[in-house]
Amino acid sequence: MESSKSKSKHKKERVVILGSGWAGYAVARTLDPAKYERVVVSPRSYFVFTPLLASTSVGTLEFRTILEPVRRLPQVDFFQGWADDVDFDTKMVRVEVNTSSDMGSQTVIPPPPGQATENPSKKGDVFDLSYDKLVIACGSYSQTFGIEGVRQHAHFLRDIGDARRIRLRVLSLFELCSYPSGAGLLTDDDKRTLLHFAIVGGGPTGIEFAAELHDLIYDDLARLYPDLLRFVRIAVYDVAPKVLPMFDQALAKYAMDTFARHGIDVRTEHHLERLRPADGDLGSRHGALRIKVKELGDDEVGAGLVVWSTGLMQNPLVAKLTGKKLSAAGGTGEAGQRLATDVRTGGLVTDAYLRARTTSSEGNDSAAGAGAPPAAAGRLLEDVFVIGDCAILENDPALPKTAQVASQQAIHLAKRLNRGDVSGKPFAFRNWGTLTYLGSWKAIHQSSADELKGWVAWVIWRGAYLTKSMSVRNKILVPVYWAISWLFGRGISRF
Amino acid sequence: MESSKSKSKHKKERVVILGSGWAGYAVARTLDPAKYERVVVSPRSYFVFTPLLASTSVGTLEFRTILEPVRRLPQVDFFQGWADDVDFDTKMVRVEVNTSSDMGSQTVIPPPPGQATENPSKKGDVFDLSYDKLVIACGSYSQTFGIEGVRQHAHFLRDIGDARRIRLRVLSLFELCSYPSGAGLLTDDDKRTLLHFAIVGGGPTGIEFAAELHDLIYDDLARLYPDLLRFVRIAVYDVAPKVLPMFDQALAKYAMDTFARHGIDVRTEHHLERLRPADGDLGSRHGALRIKVKELGDDEVGAGLVVWSTGLMQNPLVAKLTGKKLSAAGGTGEAGQRLATDVRTGGLVTDAYLRARTTSSEGNDSAAGAGAPPAAAGRLLEDVFVIGDCAILENDPALPKTAQVASQQAIHLAKRLNRGDVSGKPFAFRNWGTLTYLGSWKAIHQSSADELKGWVAWVIWRGAYLTKSMSVRNKILVPVYWAISWLFGRGISRF
Repeated sequence: MESSKSKSKHKKERVVILGSGWAGYAVARTLDPAKYERVVVSPRSYFVFTPLLASTSVGTLEFRTILEPVRRLPQVDFFQGWADDVDFDTKMVRVEVNTSSDMGSQTVIPPPPGQATENPSKKGDVFDLSYDKLVIACGSYSQTFGIEGVRQHAHFLRDIGDARRIRLRVLSLFELCSYPSGAGLLTDDDKRTLLHFAIVGGGPTGIEFAAELHDLIYDDLARLYPDLLRFVRIAVYDVAPKVLPMFDQALAKYAMDTFARHGIDVRTEHHLERLRPADGDLGSRHGALRIKVKELGDDEVGAGLVVWSTGLMQNPLVAKLTGKKLSAAGGTGEAGQRLATDVRTGGLVTDAYLRARTTSSEGNDSAAGAGAPPAAAGRLLEDVFVIGDCAILENDPALPKTAQVASQQAIHLAKRLNRGDVSGKPFAFRNWGTLTYLGSWKAIHQSSADELKGWVAWVIWRGAYLTKSMSVRNKILVPVYWAISWLFGRGISRF
Repeated sequence: MESSKSKSKHKKERVVILGSGWAGYAVARTLDPAKYERVVVSPRSYFVFTPLLASTSVGTLEFRTILEPVRRLPQVDFFQGWADDVDFDTKMVRVEVNTSSDMGSQTVIPPPPGQATENPSKKGDVFDLSYDKLVIACGSYSQTFGIEGVRQHAHFLRDIGDARRIRLRVLSLFELCSYPSGAGLLTDDDKRTLLHFAIVGGGPTGIEFAAELHDLIYDDLARLYPDLLRFVRIAVYDVAPKVLPMFDQALAKYAMDTFARHGIDVRTEHHLERLRPADGDLGSRHGALRIKVKELGDDEVGAGLVVWSTGLMQNPLVAKLTGKKLSAAGGTGEAGQRLATDVRTGGLVTDAYLRARTTSSEGNDSAAGAGAPPAAAGRLLEDVFVIGDCAILENDPALPKTAQVASQQAIHLAKRLNRGDVSGKPFAFRNWGTLTYLGSWKAIHQSSADELKGWVAWVIWRGAYLTKSMSVRNKILVPVYWAISWLFGRGISRF
């Protein structure tokens, strides 16, 4: 930090931010442009307001109403690409450019090591970017637990391109089943398979998607395809004994009662073992899938769409960075150190001020996540901060990987940086509570202070989303679309 | 018609409408549901409000605000697919289903005969659909005049998928050129090539796209990529000695003066001879093109985007139908007849009441378009109507292939059908005038009654679009987006 401080007399310190999600975007937005030159590096050019992602996947909202382009932040520099590597000694980030039109917008699960087929579109040009301070906020990847076929055949719901694919698929399935039945055409059984919508994972994302899908089908598609309703089935599968584990018994029961009334199947203690295309035309031409569930034995379940909404794994960049040895000049004052990782999650360990912790190369990693006390021997990289899904706080390792945590960490860090006093106050998470939409204008909300359900929760749910994180543009557009969808129905153009 | 009339005592006559463009959609919307069962067959599930297509291609409007899903028309049945064949004797349409997610939304130019590689995704299931009356409104295809590379490398602007591709491409090109220049990276010359936007065709579509693109670049992208403006060039190429031939001298000059002030190059009397990918990485990885223009000799012009907006050709279905011999039972009362076509355009000839004309198989086709009088010998298919781009009126063969003509024919036909009196009144085209947007809130308008230019024309232009053809939903959303784009800038998320 010494050298960069002397530089700052002449020009502003450059803060390079890796990622444009809840953590990275909020840092870029909150940092004072009078004090810092801000540079964002991210494979996608916008921030996605993820709590409304499920709403766009069913057409209640238009996709762009939940996107905030990074370039719209005044005076923020942006490079679309992946941070391919970081040299902590020379304080340089190697950026691999992402020039594809919309590749960054869709969840891609890398194949397991060994089967690694290099993604040819990811072989971009590279260039180096120097930093004075670095904020690592590149998030996590989806975790498929190595279950056969999930990577290839399931839909994810983490990015805007995922939402678009799901929306097209749902509408296509109804269109496909609307043709007359008959010789060479789909049978009623085929239609029953194709209109089975399976959601794997009973956390808030899976439950909300099931709820929004139910609204789309029963509010809108029921009028357009009345003959098809008898074939429709929405089912949520989870390995745990109950869904929505973060809610207390009464609220979770309320959710399940609501789902039961809506006819949404919830199958707890069900383990998905394999996903494969259905045999014949139904699989090859119409994309039908067969789901093998441990509890159902050899009887596979047919489905037209499988949405995978469970599990996170570490970003490949994090794994790469933790393998690197640092020189003494790298800021720790001791050669042979490397970034400390949490053994259980693979996340990067930080101190209470969100600074990257190092450890000696021999491997003295924190098993903080498993309950053990963090390694005290580690030093710090004073100019490298880690926030969001890829960070593990050594003094609060059990923090969930949520938008709330990422956003609070980002704002805390940016404000401390603005004061020039990073170690003035440790980060402390304040739980604002959890909200889950259940369909038909109902939601449940739980925090330490209160719990709410029904339409009151719904009003809070929608209201809260409007005031946080969005640009004025989207603060206008989102309610406009809510009103339009309520008055005229959801957007059903298959485009 | 006799048999169907006797049926109509028991149930409504079924009108099958082929196409969901200006002609087909307006017929479906205007036909009285109390009198007719309406069935629309179209490869795409929505009507596109084409005058605003260029606005969506630059992000002023959201794509879905100019789409009207056919299924939203109450009581209209819809099958997504191509009319593959028609049996006029048994009054059946063979429908090939289109189950792709969004294939129908993009302009596809079939390869020339001989090179015909069958499109595998177009090999759908088929089923038959009977009709009492048939309305052929399947429009026209883009014409590339066999110029090498146009089909493969040019962008078209006729459907919503085309607009999306253009939008992604324009934004991607700016992003691509925003990376630092340097070794292994793009040079300034590369950036000059990539930011050359070439529009081929100086009709209203090409001119409006150039104008809207200019607005996007100078209103919005200039602020986000200030360093790139020096590389930008917009050019319009046309083979004719002047652009906008439908406007009088003064208005066309006004348009050209406006363009000159905006720095948009207009190159008249330029003949494009070939389009090919640029050599090396610039072509293979970044999609740069080389344009060969006859007047420029061997010096090819580099470009990042070529938009093709000139020329229409006949729909392949029309060619197929005109080859068919009809039996006497087919309605003409004389065996061996076939549908009459206009030799110059390949269009289907109709009488003044928009009914399909037949001719004897020996070929007595009308050369109406070339000024010759139509073949009088032909008979009529009383229950088959042809409107829009694929129709040629024998008494007014020079009608342009425009939305105005298609829309007026559709409304005329539907109203006459509603009265049960098709031959009560011949179709007469009423010219509402032509409007072309020139950028920066200016437009020109010309009709027989008046001519307007500047912002007055702009107000009329925008106002007129709001009141015609759109659902209430889009009548609200389009002005909302105009206001949002005006206040906060256009949508620039690269998605």
